[in-house]
Amino acid sequence: MKRYEKFADEIAGLIRSGVLAPGQKVPSVRHASRTYGVSASTVFQAYYLLEDRGLIVARARSGYFVREHVQRALAEPEIARHDAQTTEVDVSELVFSVLSSIKDPDTVPFGSAFPAPELFPLPRLARSMAHAVRDMDPRSVVADLAPGSHALRRQIALRYMVGGMPLPVEELVVTNGALEALNLCLQVVTQPGDLVAIEAPAFYASLQVLERLKLKAVEIPVHPREGIDLDVLADSLARLPIKACWFMSNFQNPLGASMAEDKKRALAALLAQHQVPLIEDDVYAELYFAAQAPKPVKAFDSEGLVMHCSSFSKSLAPGYRVGWVAGGRYAEQIERLKLMTSLSASVPAQAAIADYLQHGGYDRHLRKLRHALESQQHAMLAAVARHFPAATRVTRPSGGYFLWLELPEHIDALKLFQLAHAQGISLAPGPIFSATRRFGHCLRLNYGHPWTTASEQAMETLGRIIHSL
Amino acid sequence: MKRYEKFADEIAGLIRSGVLAPGQKVPSVRHASRTYGVSASTVFQAYYLLEDRGLIVARARSGYFVREHVQRALAEPEIARHDAQTTEVDVSELVFSVLSSIKDPDTVPFGSAFPAPELFPLPRLARSMAHAVRDMDPRSVVADLAPGSHALRRQIALRYMVGGMPLPVEELVVTNGALEALNLCLQVVTQPGDLVAIEAPAFYASLQVLERLKLKAVEIPVHPREGIDLDVLADSLARLPIKACWFMSNFQNPLGASMAEDKKRALAALLAQHQVPLIEDDVYAELYFAAQAPKPVKAFDSEGLVMHCSSFSKSLAPGYRVGWVAGGRYAEQIERLKLMTSLSASVPAQAAIADYLQHGGYDRHLRKLRHALESQQHAMLAAVARHFPAATRVTRPSGGYFLWLELPEHIDALKLFQLAHAQGISLAPGPIFSATRRFGHCLRLNYGHPWTTASEQAMETLGRIIHSL
Repeated sequence: MKRYEKFADEIAGLIRSGVLAPGQKVPSVRHASRTYGVSASTVFQAYYLLEDRGLIVARARSGYFVREHVQRALAEPEIARHDAQTTEVDVSELVFSVLSSIKDPDTVPFGSAFPAPELFPLPRLARSMAHAVRDMDPRSVVADLAPGSHALRRQIALRYMVGGMPLPVEELVVTNGALEALNLCLQVVTQPGDLVAIEAPAFYASLQVLERLKLKAVEIPVHPREGIDLDVLADSLARLPIKACWFMSNFQNPLGASMAEDKKRALAALLAQHQVPLIEDDVYAELYFAAQAPKPVKAFDSEGLVMHCSSFSKSLAPGYRVGWVAGGRYAEQIERLKLMTSLSASVPAQAAIADYLQHGGYDRHLRKLRHALESQQHAMLAAVARHFPAATRVTRPSGGYFLWLELPEHIDALKLFQLAHAQGISLAPGPIFSATRRFGHCLRLNYGHPWTTASEQAMETLGRIIHSL
Repeated sequence: MKRYEKFADEIAGLIRSGVLAPGQKVPSVRHASRTYGVSASTVFQAYYLLEDRGLIVARARSGYFVREHVQRALAEPEIARHDAQTTEVDVSELVFSVLSSIKDPDTVPFGSAFPAPELFPLPRLARSMAHAVRDMDPRSVVADLAPGSHALRRQIALRYMVGGMPLPVEELVVTNGALEALNLCLQVVTQPGDLVAIEAPAFYASLQVLERLKLKAVEIPVHPREGIDLDVLADSLARLPIKACWFMSNFQNPLGASMAEDKKRALAALLAQHQVPLIEDDVYAELYFAAQAPKPVKAFDSEGLVMHCSSFSKSLAPGYRVGWVAGGRYAEQIERLKLMTSLSASVPAQAAIADYLQHGGYDRHLRKLRHALESQQHAMLAAVARHFPAATRVTRPSGGYFLWLELPEHIDALKLFQLAHAQGISLAPGPIFSATRRFGHCLRLNYGHPWTTASEQAMETLGRIIHSL
């Protein structure tokens, strides 16, 4: 990381934590240079970067100011408390009808589950792929069956180590994306009819998977900023025969909530007390805006109860379909199930990513990606504030690429979804995120695409439709 | 195909059909050149090729003769008839212990499930991969989610069309190898506890899949040459609540049996009569030794009951993990299940294979591969005849790369497996191919690897161990 980037991150941290408040003047270049012991040109470059990221604005002849977060006008959603009840899951039809509309490439992709492909270093990755397949040992096609390429697993284990969570390579199984990893974990620890604790709202694919495996769900409320409600979870674990939990501890989809470290520690202790496994879906972990990577719950698990699932699909290579799971005490069972289900992940894709991780500059790419996402978030928040009703509530996640919006109660998100679709705009309506079809007036918007005039216009159109309802 | 190759195939056809009997003199070059209207040099080249493939031998000053198939001394196995009984499946542990021993790269790979990687055009495929990822539209990563890359599905549909079975592209779903395709099909048409008709002996992975999905099996006997016993199947379909059949109609693993077209037609009619779906595993279809590709049962299915599964893993790119299913009336359900299970196959692997199919010379490669496999089969059959007890029965499949051997009844194949493993030789013991642990004195040997002195020595060692038992 360059000097000015580091300095920019420090200032961004001060803004984020509120030390520098909206509207406040940022230290002058001369002052900052003296105080922080950096050159004036470093400060300049850092301020340009922060301006670019939408955190500060220049005022003629007055210097830089922390941006008046227009979005401050809008409140954050509150936690939707409810009794944790056991329920059958039956949302697949609804989800499929929504998903099929999202696939159209001409649609404004606010409903998409992926960031824009142009944010990924696909040309560099293509070089890694060409290099990897040219040098590939023909025998690797058999040797790299489950648990997967040793070179790739070593690179993944290295990243865990750097993140402060050393892990034996043997615990890792490479999968066809995180979705397969999650499917395998769930099948290892449950039987049809079993009860699984999930989040409310939850990622819709997890609901589909539960439905397909004939599992029952108990929905644990999620605070839009702090993550799952541990009291409700503790009560549910004491009261109900829960066989597994399935949570996202960082930048939860769709709320963007992240649990604090203390809370993660408490969750790990609670799981240990009840000896209930956690399937931790951590696919957004690399997309943090703060200075430090958040830790997973797995970092606080001393009993091997946490199966930590992630992938490169959201941060590097959507479409390569390379994910993994660090399976704790279930690692061997997961490996065997993987062998029976699809044998192995694509060997060239594994080799290409292993090569890229070693030589391609992944961390440099991630820094650029995080900055792009953060500045796109600012742009979308500003557009929400400009075009949506004042009573709209909206999250301000510190990572990932989703906003969650609570519209006035009388707005039907499914109706809004249809009207928007007719205007060539996709969005993800609230009810697809719930086994009990809650969140009827909520929606998830994707800010993972470069902000353009078309994005701004689409937000204006959405606002107009909402006002008309 | 070159002129001499075509002529060689004609002669090979005469040998295979018995017009030219073992030991019989092949027409002299002058005679053949006159009779068939080809040049003497074409005949020479064809005879060299046939000699190379082990079909004819040169005798000094006498010309060429059809090889005295030494293996003729050994009988073929007979069909193992038994009552079709419903059974729970519980073989996974045994299969895993066998599979783990096969992974060792220093082992003589007679137990392997794959042909030798060096028989595949991996450098040419690497060029297709480099080309495909360089030119890849970034949006394809989202557009190519299930049902898969349109370019690849079009190429696959083209091959079906050339094979005389036109198919709409929309019916095809690309999967992570055939194994995932088979898993998806089975889950679409069954529930835990349901009964599935399988072959005896059957591919061990299908037994593992049944066990994992808590399905019951009824084993239908397979004739080593003609395929499943239709009478037993008809009786079972009439008597038992069979929810699906899972068969390999061409070069069945492990027996190598292929059903005649009439039998395939009769099977399709039987399925239609009972309205029972067939999951047709046809991964060896391209590895035929005769002049013509065999048709699948799907070609005779007018009701959409057959889900035809195949892949490129045995004929082009093991390790790329690209398979597909033509799902008939179940296509949409399969596509949805694929989305929920692993979203899509690896996009670069799909793009590389689509490029290779269009530009890489797949048919030329396949001709070479078939000839290599056929000549390796001759070598292994000859070694069986030389080194194994005279009472050994062995198959002579007309495609694929497996021999199935019935040893004298007192030989314990699992014991043999262990003793061979201690000598650095792998093999697949009979009991892993049966839900009811039949075939205790049988084994499957892989002839998919170039025949070397080490192969010959390993056969001698195996023979010695068998004699010692």
